[in-house]
Amino acid sequence: IPCSYVKQGQNAKLAHQNKIRLLLEKKKIPDDGWDDMSIELLLQELAVMDSNNFSGNCGVGEREARVFSNLVSQRHYRFGHGIGRSGEITAVQPKAAGSSIMATLTNKLALHAIKLAGITLVKKCFVVPMATGMCLTLCMLTLKQKRPTARFVIWPRIDQKSCLKSISTAGLEAVVIENKIEGDELRTDVEAIEDKIAELGAENILCVLTTTSCFAPRTPDRLEEVGAICKEKDVPQLVNNAYGLQCSKCTHLVQQGSKTRLDLFVQSTDKNFLVPVGGSIIAGFDESLIDNVSKCYPGRASGSPSMDLFITLLSMGVKGYKELLQQRKANYQYMAEKLAETAAMFGEKLLDTKHNGISMALSLSKLDMMSDVSQVTEVGSKLFTRLVSGTRVVAKSGKVTEICGLKMKNFGSHSNSYPSSYLTAAASIGMRKDEVDLFINRLDKVLTNVYTEKNQS
Amino acid sequence: IPCSYVKQGQNAKLAHQNKIRLLLEKKKIPDDGWDDMSIELLLQELAVMDSNNFSGNCGVGEREARVFSNLVSQRHYRFGHGIGRSGEITAVQPKAAGSSIMATLTNKLALHAIKLAGITLVKKCFVVPMATGMCLTLCMLTLKQKRPTARFVIWPRIDQKSCLKSISTAGLEAVVIENKIEGDELRTDVEAIEDKIAELGAENILCVLTTTSCFAPRTPDRLEEVGAICKEKDVPQLVNNAYGLQCSKCTHLVQQGSKTRLDLFVQSTDKNFLVPVGGSIIAGFDESLIDNVSKCYPGRASGSPSMDLFITLLSMGVKGYKELLQQRKANYQYMAEKLAETAAMFGEKLLDTKHNGISMALSLSKLDMMSDVSQVTEVGSKLFTRLVSGTRVVAKSGKVTEICGLKMKNFGSHSNSYPSSYLTAAASIGMRKDEVDLFINRLDKVLTNVYTEKNQS
Amino acid sequence: IPCSYVKQGQNAKLAHQNKIRLLLEKKKIPDDGWDDMSIELLLQELAVMDSNNFSGNCGVGEREARVFSNLVSQRHYRFGHGIGRSGEITAVQPKAAGSSIMATLTNKLALHAIKLAGITLVKKCFVVPMATGMCLTLCMLTLKQKRPTARFVIWPRIDQKSCLKSISTAGLEAVVIENKIEGDELRTDVEAIEDKIAELGAENILCVLTTTSCFAPRTPDRLEEVGAICKEKDVPQLVNNAYGLQCSKCTHLVQQGSKTRLDLFVQSTDKNFLVPVGGSIIAGFDESLIDNVSKCYPGRASGSPSMDLFITLLSMGVKGYKELLQQRKANYQYMAEKLAETAAMFGEKLLDTKHNGISMALSLSKLDMMSDVSQVTEVGSKLFTRLVSGTRVVAKSGKVTEICGLKMKNFGSHSNSYPSSYLTAAASIGMRKDEVDLFINRLDKVLTNVYTEKNQS
Amino acid sequence: IPCSYVKQGQNAKLAHQNKIRLLLEKKKIPDDGWDDMSIELLLQELAVMDSNNFSGNCGVGEREARVFSNLVSQRHYRFGHGIGRSGEITAVQPKAAGSSIMATLTNKLALHAIKLAGITLVKKCFVVPMATGMCLTLCMLTLKQKRPTARFVIWPRIDQKSCLKSISTAGLEAVVIENKIEGDELRTDVEAIEDKIAELGAENILCVLTTTSCFAPRTPDRLEEVGAICKEKDVPQLVNNAYGLQCSKCTHLVQQGSKTRLDLFVQSTDKNFLVPVGGSIIAGFDESLIDNVSKCYPGRASGSPSMDLFITLLSMGVKGYKELLQQRKANYQYMAEKLAETAAMFGEKLLDTKHNGISMALSLSKLDMMSDVSQVTEVGSKLFTRLVSGTRVVAKSGKVTEICGLKMKNFGSHSNSYPSSYLTAAASIGMRKDEVDLFINRLDKVLTNVYTEKNQS
Repeated sequence: IPCSYVKQGQNAKLAHQNKIRLLLEKKKIPDDGWDDMSIELLLQELAVMDSNNFSGNCGVGEREARVFSNLVSQRHYRFGHGIGRSGEITAVQPKAAGSSIMATLTNKLALHAIKLAGITLVKKCFVVPMATGMCLTLCMLTLKQKRPTARFVIWPRIDQKSCLKSISTAGLEAVVIENKIEGDELRTDVEAIEDKIAELGAENILCVLTTTSCFAPRTPDRLEEVGAICKEKDVPQLVNNAYGLQCSKCTHLVQQGSKTRLDLFVQSTDKNFLVPVGGSIIAGFDESLIDNVSKCYPGRASGSPSMDLFITLLSMGVKGYKELLQQRKANYQYMAEKLAETAAMFGEKLLDTKHNGISMALSLSKLDMMSDVSQVTEVGSKLFTRLVSGTRVVAKSGKVTEICGLKMKNFGSHSNSYPSSYLTAAASIGMRKDEVDLFINRLDKVLTNVYTEKNQS
Repeated sequence: IPCSYVKQGQNAKLAHQNKIRLLLEKKKIPDDGWDDMSIELLLQELAVMDSNNFSGNCGVGEREARVFSNLVSQRHYRFGHGIGRSGEITAVQPKAAGSSIMATLTNKLALHAIKLAGITLVKKCFVVPMATGMCLTLCMLTLKQKRPTARFVIWPRIDQKSCLKSISTAGLEAVVIENKIEGDELRTDVEAIEDKIAELGAENILCVLTTTSCFAPRTPDRLEEVGAICKEKDVPQLVNNAYGLQCSKCTHLVQQGSKTRLDLFVQSTDKNFLVPVGGSIIAGFDESLIDNVSKCYPGRASGSPSMDLFITLLSMGVKGYKELLQQRKANYQYMAEKLAETAAMFGEKLLDTKHNGISMALSLSKLDMMSDVSQVTEVGSKLFTRLVSGTRVVAKSGKVTEICGLKMKNFGSHSNSYPSSYLTAAASIGMRKDEVDLFINRLDKVLTNVYTEKNQS
Repeated sequence: IPCSYVKQGQNAKLAHQNKIRLLLEKKKIPDDGWDDMSIELLLQELAVMDSNNFSGNCGVGEREARVFSNLVSQRHYRFGHGIGRSGEITAVQPKAAGSSIMATLTNKLALHAIKLAGITLVKKCFVVPMATGMCLTLCMLTLKQKRPTARFVIWPRIDQKSCLKSISTAGLEAVVIENKIEGDELRTDVEAIEDKIAELGAENILCVLTTTSCFAPRTPDRLEEVGAICKEKDVPQLVNNAYGLQCSKCTHLVQQGSKTRLDLFVQSTDKNFLVPVGGSIIAGFDESLIDNVSKCYPGRASGSPSMDLFITLLSMGVKGYKELLQQRKANYQYMAEKLAETAAMFGEKLLDTKHNGISMALSLSKLDMMSDVSQVTEVGSKLFTRLVSGTRVVAKSGKVTEICGLKMKNFGSHSNSYPSSYLTAAASIGMRKDEVDLFINRLDKVLTNVYTEKNQS
Repeated sequence: IPCSYVKQGQNAKLAHQNKIRLLLEKKKIPDDGWDDMSIELLLQELAVMDSNNFSGNCGVGEREARVFSNLVSQRHYRFGHGIGRSGEITAVQPKAAGSSIMATLTNKLALHAIKLAGITLVKKCFVVPMATGMCLTLCMLTLKQKRPTARFVIWPRIDQKSCLKSISTAGLEAVVIENKIEGDELRTDVEAIEDKIAELGAENILCVLTTTSCFAPRTPDRLEEVGAICKEKDVPQLVNNAYGLQCSKCTHLVQQGSKTRLDLFVQSTDKNFLVPVGGSIIAGFDESLIDNVSKCYPGRASGSPSMDLFITLLSMGVKGYKELLQQRKANYQYMAEKLAETAAMFGEKLLDTKHNGISMALSLSKLDMMSDVSQVTEVGSKLFTRLVSGTRVVAKSGKVTEICGLKMKNFGSHSNSYPSSYLTAAASIGMRKDEVDLFINRLDKVLTNVYTEKNQS
């Protein structure tokens, strides 16, 4: 092979290695996303550094990352050691330099992403291969080590089972703070929180568990005002920011909350970064607190969610990520307009929930008058049959449900007494504009069908 | 294409579909392992059933399993929904029939595997995408719901950080039971357990946390005798069976323990089934208790460890799995013989730890006499440099370490006062016989080097 | 798993199977491109039908499609039998129903693609795993069986080595017909062809080998007028349509040629359909002639180029393919405008070659005056160094080259005496518009550098 | 990440790079096969060197190796340029240093493999992406350039269609030399060849086309004795060594043939090296002749068969390849014994064809007496139905078939008058011993069924 050809090839190789060097130095998401080839090459070069891939290695320990199936080995790019050590989930492994670099780097890239999303004051974070609920439990168990006698969690009501479970699994008791109805919105009752803390005694309270991302008509909690109380009473604020990174309304709240008091915020990787379900990012404004949470995770863990995020952030690049955030915002506007038009045609309205930047709700008041509860909920299943996934119909029922020992009325509506039934829909990251059109079109058909039928009968 | 050719092709397709039907009906590991093609085809056929892969689907929820990177999508065979629901990790998902079938089936196959390993009385189990330590925490938190005031965990000493962490993260206090030295072995002090329960009061004790798989010269705990006390005092027994499934000595103990009292036992998927780090199986003899643990995991979780196990068990088949178990046993015998020979050449001995069927230890008594602690530990790092991974050198040091608030002497040796230094090695599942030879050969070189050097200096 | 979930999943599966059924019935490129998952699933379902994938098969032949390497097996989706039989490359294989269906279907999809590209009258075609040159040889060898004594190929000059090679490898003699200069263009000298046939005797002429796609300032041959002579003299016309499918100017010529006489036309799969190098499509207007060519290929052949085309056409869909064709046309216009502007800035011009719809040329007349030949060609290598690939600088040199026994003047310029040096560039299928901008930008820099330097020296 | 961990990782990387460096320097198959990870890493490192993978490249040529489908791109490890240039199939490409290195290296590894197989005197070879038949045509067309007036090919009869096609497609005429029956074997009639050359005139003969690997009872041709005549008369000898590399009997003949006269020998990659159908190796003892053949292939070609062979030879290693050759030999012996036993049970015999080391035949003489031709051939289809692929039943029929203009009696039996019907089976490379057992078992069932039935009726 003539030298000149090889030289140009080697230049290309050098360019590739420079890209990697830059990543290792800057520990930031690259401006332009990487192509798949570059990502795979980096992963393979890291894998070579793990002992299970050393040629001539002989393993006489109890865990040597041997992998039986070739399919399994390939799908993990031949990584086998997971992440973390028995001491700590963010610790590096002597046997697995490559895996350790990947995991450490992913945590840095995640930090960069959180900043890009608007929480520029964030100090540290790490990826955990557990969903948001279990991560909240882990955070509470960590807080518990500093507040061993505290047993209550002040909890502005958010009707998600996993949220209540995360409290009860941690061995704690949820103290429900009902939301206030303001216009069409359900908003945090800050005074009630303050009163409850006074009533129970701040020292008996593990934390206030607030929520950002949620289904309309509930809106993200008032983190800054809650934080002010927390600061005054010396009670931690833990935030369930499940899918809030994608929305500047939520990230702004988290950022502002940090100015009063906000200890930890947790978000899912799948909902914010378009990876399969399975990982979360635990983040905060105090490095040592984050280290404490990391030390509470006993032992190694799956590296799979970290790898997914690693690949994805490299692939997106800063530009790609920002573009996705902008598209989401635009889709939200577009869907709101279209939904308002559709609502008008059936004598309903788009609820006015401007504090919620992701989810929106369409009233089903007329249907409430025409039919019983089961017929209202039918709207949802009819949409599902027409391949619309993700809408939720919340019907006024007055039903009481018991969850984790708590009796809750109208569970699913975040309120004991919301005035009407409604249907929710969300504009999430990664949605395409044509999906909005499809949705509106199918919704129109279903509503026409339901409303006409009812009128005739 | 002539009909006869197509017909033979369709017969092949039918044969394949029958294989799948059989799997779905029997929910057992097939006798003969499946080839990779069949496994991939099954995974793809399941993936088609998940809503994120429906063509024409329009998703307006907050979580629609969209995946940004094609690499990520492919490595998960286009599954995106993870496993479980907000209520429960073993719940099925409306949006993801394929993922749900995969996860449910994996739990059944895991149950079959546990039976094959010797615990035939096991009733139910499920795969969790968390390492053993975090699973033990989850089990303790579950037990805590029934025993809310209990705060102690009786813990026959086993020097693994993650084990202590699992207790402290659960907000509990470990009560150390020192091991008894019997011959060369470190064994459970059953009487001390009984005394300690009496001293603290059974109602204050959450559980006894026993261990099977461990480094020699410690041996698996006496589960049956401990269980007898637990039964009498009504205290749960929780077993850390981390890599014990691979060894009939351990599985026999678990099986026998169930005849007195043994509530839950936890094992890692990577150490027992040759998959990447990241999953565990929580199992037990009482279905409702297992359901309770499952319900305590708040929310969805990564399906990646389940998928790895699913692929691996289908690929092994019953025959392949049994063969691996037999090979391991044979390798253990072979390594013990070879190590005894090597020991003899240097005036050392293979410690007599016949109750431990996985790990073995070679005394370093002469080295204790010749040199100081740091030189003893050097043996380990010299082996690592020669690409022997997994040995551990435990030197007599008398050093006191603080872990999770506990002060422990000679941490790593499972004992305050083991008489000599030693080096451990294990015969784990998946090891090849030639690795034993390599190990012995390299060990011989290192010992020659160290012992000669010491003699001369 | 609840029935309703499974049912929706099975509906999805059914939808997928319907898609496949439709493909098998219609044997046409689907309107909307398939997603990768559907394509992979289809390939795997076909692979199951090949005997090398039958479970329980025992092979005692000399060729059983055993594949040693798992990597190799996977990259061919576990197909191993190739295509064709010893008799004929389009024959089906008893041992490989799946491979046979894939290959047969690909030929049908290719036929559909050719029609979409504008040659609606085409009757039959097949994919061959050989590049265009070798396919032309195969076509000539086939024609030779009907015209055993013919030994000349009338060849309107096109300066591609492989073209001459294809003639000489077939054991034939190329008779060069120089092109006529018309304006800036080099065009077919139809009269010269007629004269030459008369001179040599039609019975001694195997065929006229014309060309469509070519570098400007040469233009596609006048197929219809050449065909008229061929018809009159009963001489076959064979067309090298290498990358002509992507351009309606070329496909129109082939279509029109068929109305006088045009026997076979050959095109590459990589240049027209964006697959890796390696395949061609041999097509024509007479089914039995195509069958004859197929029967001349002795033995089996690689199925890899067929598989690439199969995947690609399914992935593109009719819509995707048409879109690519339109984009290419738009890029051509855009590049022509931009190049004309650039030319003007340096006192050069874009040659007026409107009959060539893919390639265009920028005169380098001033450079001819300023410098010697080696400096002219430097423009090309300077562009290559700046990562512009694919331009060609043709310098007036007067040099005579011998190829396959023919002495040719100014080889590379398609002419003994083109008046100026020039640089060519092409707007090919798959090019992105921003590549045009990049090219113009880099060209501007190189020309500035070269022209300024020359002026100063 | 601590330095010491990274250092060990980098050592591993260095070890990997040394392995690659060694390969590039020695250009030989490594002694020990490479693991899949190393192979993939090498392929990706090479792919980076191809211009289609340069980041920032802008392509304005007519062929830029753009690939539409991600699936296609991945399965070729992102190589797109194929191999060769318009001039020559072994030429390197300026745009594709990586592809060129891969292709060049593969040719060297193939040469090494041929030597390992026993033809130590071989001088040069190259891989062509065409099956054996088409390669024979290419060889003949190359020879034709030196012997333009020759038009006959002397052809010791071997009843494979593709063989005759390869001659007629090259525009030549096959002159059949009937085989001699010696004992049970059909062997080359050397005298008849000599006589025929004298009769037709050596100058009119393009070559003698001999065959090594073939179905018993035919045996490999007497290459050395034929070569002696060729040498004397100055006629080339071309050898169809289709699947002969796997058998030392065949490679010995080729080696010996080179000592008299043997110009070129052609073998398939799939049959000798367990890759998918699609490639051949053209080899010889004179470098310049091999170069001539390479120059006759007009244009680029698919790199897919080269890549398959590249991966496979790296994966096998010298040891793995030798082991496969030995296993094959052992299976041949084993099958012969078992088949002789089975034959005896039915009053038949294993034909004594000791000169054929791959294929063997079992007489069906009794069946000839009992039934008509169609019933004899039924034995084959009954075996196929029972999933035995690859056997061939040759029935005495006296039928005359016309192929490529030649009328041949008993086509398929290599003889006008072989005394009995028979069934063939082969012990090919890659066969497992348990397949022999399966075959014998199923054959026994089929013969029992047929012979019993006939006796009863």
